[in-house]
Amino acid sequence: MTEPLDRSRIAVVLVAPRNPLNIGAVARAMSNFGFFDLRLVDAYEVAYREAKSAIHAGAVLEAAREFPSLAGAVADCSLVIGTTSGERRTLHHRLVRLEAARPDLAANAGRTAILFGSEKFGLSAADLDLCHWSLRIPARPEHGSMNLGQAAAVILYELIRDSGSTAPRLVHRADATALGRLEGLLLEALAESGYHQTPATVGKIRRLIRRLEIPPHDAEVWQGIFRQILWKLRHNRERNDESPDEV
Amino acid sequence: MTEPLDRSRIAVVLVAPRNPLNIGAVARAMSNFGFFDLRLVDAYEVAYREAKSAIHAGAVLEAAREFPSLAGAVADCSLVIGTTSGERRTLHHRLVRLEAARPDLAANAGRTAILFGSEKFGLSAADLDLCHWSLRIPARPEHGSMNLGQAAAVILYELIRDSGSTAPRLVHRADATALGRLEGLLLEALAESGYHQTPATVGKIRRLIRRLEIPPHDAEVWQGIFRQILWKLRHNRERNDESPDEV
Repeated sequence: MTEPLDRSRIAVVLVAPRNPLNIGAVARAMSNFGFFDLRLVDAYEVAYREAKSAIHAGAVLEAAREFPSLAGAVADCSLVIGTTSGERRTLHHRLVRLEAARPDLAANAGRTAILFGSEKFGLSAADLDLCHWSLRIPARPEHGSMNLGQAAAVILYELIRDSGSTAPRLVHRADATALGRLEGLLLEALAESGYHQTPATVGKIRRLIRRLEIPPHDAEVWQGIFRQILWKLRHNRERNDESPDEV
Repeated sequence: MTEPLDRSRIAVVLVAPRNPLNIGAVARAMSNFGFFDLRLVDAYEVAYREAKSAIHAGAVLEAAREFPSLAGAVADCSLVIGTTSGERRTLHHRLVRLEAARPDLAANAGRTAILFGSEKFGLSAADLDLCHWSLRIPARPEHGSMNLGQAAAVILYELIRDSGSTAPRLVHRADATALGRLEGLLLEALAESGYHQTPATVGKIRRLIRRLEIPPHDAEVWQGIFRQILWKLRHNRERNDESPDEV
């Protein structure tokens, strides 16, 4: 089950981005995950132009809007979320771990802005003053600073990932009849090969086969393999029986 | 509650990476999320050198190991997972959505390899034959192709994110070296048995064996079984060769 987060109500806001590769990477992650509202505040002009000309940028960068101030960029948003590595400074407001942030974002009826600061300095204190709260990606404290494009990809992924209890993965296994056939063929092949058998061998082989958890179709393929091997073992023996062994 | 996925048991394997920025970005995401075992197969030498000299690369790239073949790179891994956008081709094996993949990864008792293909071509069919299954990031079907560094960041984040479930039951699997030996013995036995082989047979047998998910000790028992069968097949043939067939 997917929690119904409306992607069209999420805006990604880059504040003072400097590297065209990063702008392009954010746009690409947005396109990958189905977010199309990109806004840039005080973008370094050359970087923005270069990003626009990059491959993979596509529709998101084409439709991106520029704003002279952060206040203008988030004017239509009813929830404004900062992003931070959360290490360097005391924050004046709530800092939420990414996994815990999603329900609030999904529940906001209006438009939500997610802010990313510049590569070098992050969001300023003044930027954060315009945020309701901030979220942080749970990176290692020793290396919390993430690449901008990667941070955006991780956050957007968290927003679209299937949060409900996912349906359990069904495991398809061959039935006992198929396993019994396989077991019989293997025991015959072992007998023909002179494999040392004890009274415990049958039980051991049974358990050995069951521990494999063979899918239904594969059980037939394995039967085919052992039939072929068994046929060859018998065929060889019969030919040997015909031509008596001198040894 | 965080499910205790042991990060030290996860290896990230880049197959034929070409772009130093991407190699660096993968290493950075690994460092952010606490993964330190990076392996490169057939890396473009210049790209690798450039990546190593980049900032933010740090300890992960310093400790990265190079391998001439994928088989060598995953030899000590008991679970090998491919990554794919899952769009372009029919896969011969199971394709699991990222959110659903984590429990299996957390449950693997041995070392797990997560494979990323080259930026241009992804993983080859032969690479995928060495995988137990593949995972895909749930990107939009219309734009499923993700940047390598961003894909790695998203996948590693999913592995470390707080999933809220309880401790997994560990699943013990034979490593790739043991499976390779088994595969070799089975192919020899099939050849001795006159099993109809096509160029696709090796790949089919590889996938067939990997779908079994054989426990480590059992891999040795199966090797013993196939060695015995193979010995008998050869022994019979040699005796037949000595006593010419009249038929």
